[in-house]
Amino acid sequence: MDADRLRSAVDWRDGRLEVIDQTLLPERLVLLELTTVAEVVDALRRLAVRGAPAIGVAGAFGVVLGLEDDAAAASLPAALAAMERAAAQLEAARPTAVNLRWGVRRVVAAAAAATTGSELRRLALHEARRILEEDRAACRRIGQAGLVELGGRRRLLTHCNTGRLATAGLGTALAVVYAKAEAGEPVEVLASETRPLLQGARLTAWELVNAGIPVTVLADTAAGAAMAGGLVDAVLVGCDRVARNGDTANKIGTYQLAVVAAASGIPFYVVGPLSSFDPETPDGGRIVIEQRPAAEVTMLAGSRLVPEQAAVWNPAFDVTPASLVTAFITDAGVLRPPFAPAIATALAGRADPPDSLSR
Amino acid sequence: MDADRLRSAVDWRDGRLEVIDQTLLPERLVLLELTTVAEVVDALRRLAVRGAPAIGVAGAFGVVLGLEDDAAAASLPAALAAMERAAAQLEAARPTAVNLRWGVRRVVAAAAAATTGSELRRLALHEARRILEEDRAACRRIGQAGLVELGGRRRLLTHCNTGRLATAGLGTALAVVYAKAEAGEPVEVLASETRPLLQGARLTAWELVNAGIPVTVLADTAAGAAMAGGLVDAVLVGCDRVARNGDTANKIGTYQLAVVAAASGIPFYVVGPLSSFDPETPDGGRIVIEQRPAAEVTMLAGSRLVPEQAAVWNPAFDVTPASLVTAFITDAGVLRPPFAPAIATALAGRADPPDSLSR
Repeated sequence: MDADRLRSAVDWRDGRLEVIDQTLLPERLVLLELTTVAEVVDALRRLAVRGAPAIGVAGAFGVVLGLEDDAAAASLPAALAAMERAAAQLEAARPTAVNLRWGVRRVVAAAAAATTGSELRRLALHEARRILEEDRAACRRIGQAGLVELGGRRRLLTHCNTGRLATAGLGTALAVVYAKAEAGEPVEVLASETRPLLQGARLTAWELVNAGIPVTVLADTAAGAAMAGGLVDAVLVGCDRVARNGDTANKIGTYQLAVVAAASGIPFYVVGPLSSFDPETPDGGRIVIEQRPAAEVTMLAGSRLVPEQAAVWNPAFDVTPASLVTAFITDAGVLRPPFAPAIATALAGRADPPDSLSR
Repeated sequence: MDADRLRSAVDWRDGRLEVIDQTLLPERLVLLELTTVAEVVDALRRLAVRGAPAIGVAGAFGVVLGLEDDAAAASLPAALAAMERAAAQLEAARPTAVNLRWGVRRVVAAAAAATTGSELRRLALHEARRILEEDRAACRRIGQAGLVELGGRRRLLTHCNTGRLATAGLGTALAVVYAKAEAGEPVEVLASETRPLLQGARLTAWELVNAGIPVTVLADTAAGAAMAGGLVDAVLVGCDRVARNGDTANKIGTYQLAVVAAASGIPFYVVGPLSSFDPETPDGGRIVIEQRPAAEVTMLAGSRLVPEQAAVWNPAFDVTPASLVTAFITDAGVLRPPFAPAIATALAGRADPPDSLSR
């Protein structure tokens, strides 16, 4: 396995946004080279690129791609208009993960100071590259914070994919796993398969097998039995949006893992960069939950799993109340209850786009 | 849809055990005609026939099929030996659902009084037919008990398949749904798809669509969000084995539904006939949990979902502690806490095979 390739789940090369097409794993490893805003939006919508930090990076470079044509470079008003168009299209691609909006707005804010079209493009590219490098650094810091926090906890249950494929770096929850492995500590991962799209079975298992880390896949239905049966030392999940009070939107299925972990006295950690924390959202009740197509549930590998006449409910995320979270493991360290002040303090240290750019 | 056909998920016709091959639904409705013990064992193992009450009936007729050859009819010792062989093979086919053992032992006990080989066969067939008819009657009584107990609760979340396909009659948890529909009460079913084998998506949805009852399928990961979001008035599940204290083994995923239901204050009902209650098992810790092949998780419709090098954990059942059960809805009425005396009283009214036949 080419480790450099794995590190490039989202990367910028030769003026193109290069992403691994995650819809084809584990059977095929295919790189997509995206050169237009429309291509980025399509890749986001069909989850070819996914994972909250990764889509923040993709959104940032998506804005840059919106400035590629000659008209945009020709005049500042044309460039500003092109940037606004790109930003609006990208932000609308997926509603729940705040990183997408955050990445797009950071680039827009950084480029706003430009006095020419070409300077605007240069500033936008510079900011997008900063976001990518910051994400890589954030993953490393998360890994180190988790290494200390997890101590001797060896058997870690995780959900969805929160690793190299979900970020520009080593991951969020899986960065902790990689940090443990690198430190020579014993670590084993229980990966819930994560229906409907099977990111745990397809992506997490693929990553960890390639990294030589023991991984056991289980149906989502078996997670409760694993916890009740004493097979789990801690649960680590990612986050798509954390509200000011600590309520957390993450991949559908996270909430019930948190409830069962609490019932078994197993620590439940939410792991992610501060870019997944949303100061504009007071609590989980305000988070828009993306509804995905029924076909994600009814069809698999061309086979129909559900009779056509049955209805389907397919939310992509759920909300875990802050009361079920043991702690947040972030690039700004471990945040502990009470979460509202801990989150406020951490966010005060983060450079956010000015409020005037909120739309 | 031919309602008589649906009622015959397990039936005895012309000296053959006729079952619907449930591995092919919802795409194809195929009837299997089983004529030997080996064929019944194979159908049980690969879940062509499944559902605790249905496999109890199948086991009973499996013993009868073990008496079909001429040698068995020729002498009483030969018939007794053939019956013991058949019983041992059938009981070993699946370890968790107690109905299988119960059905097999009832037939063996009823036939033990025979004085000739042909009388033994006649008594065995008579008892197997009684078990089938009792199961149909039990389903009707369960439906009526649930109709009263559920009152105005309309939106029912269920797991796996507990309907016509799981019994010789109308079902267990789904018998309550059918009773509500027949009584003209509004009823809607939320069916969790039930990975790995998708009995909810494939079988429950198919049954209910054919019965004209509104059904919405959701990934197992979405059940918690449905409950937290106020979409569920009660949870109804079946049971493969209920211990003397009320601890209940049922399809993997049941335990976490019970934990989340309790967290949301939603009543959680276990629904099944007394034949699923096991007086020989004091509590859930003594129930053997069947482990199923990894391929059930890793492969679907010929497509590989999990990299080959990953390990898999695939228990078929989990145990829900009695403390999470609101009540048992049975053919002997509704059993309420404290469960140990309620279960003991109900079982005292049931004709069990004599202890001397335990093996």
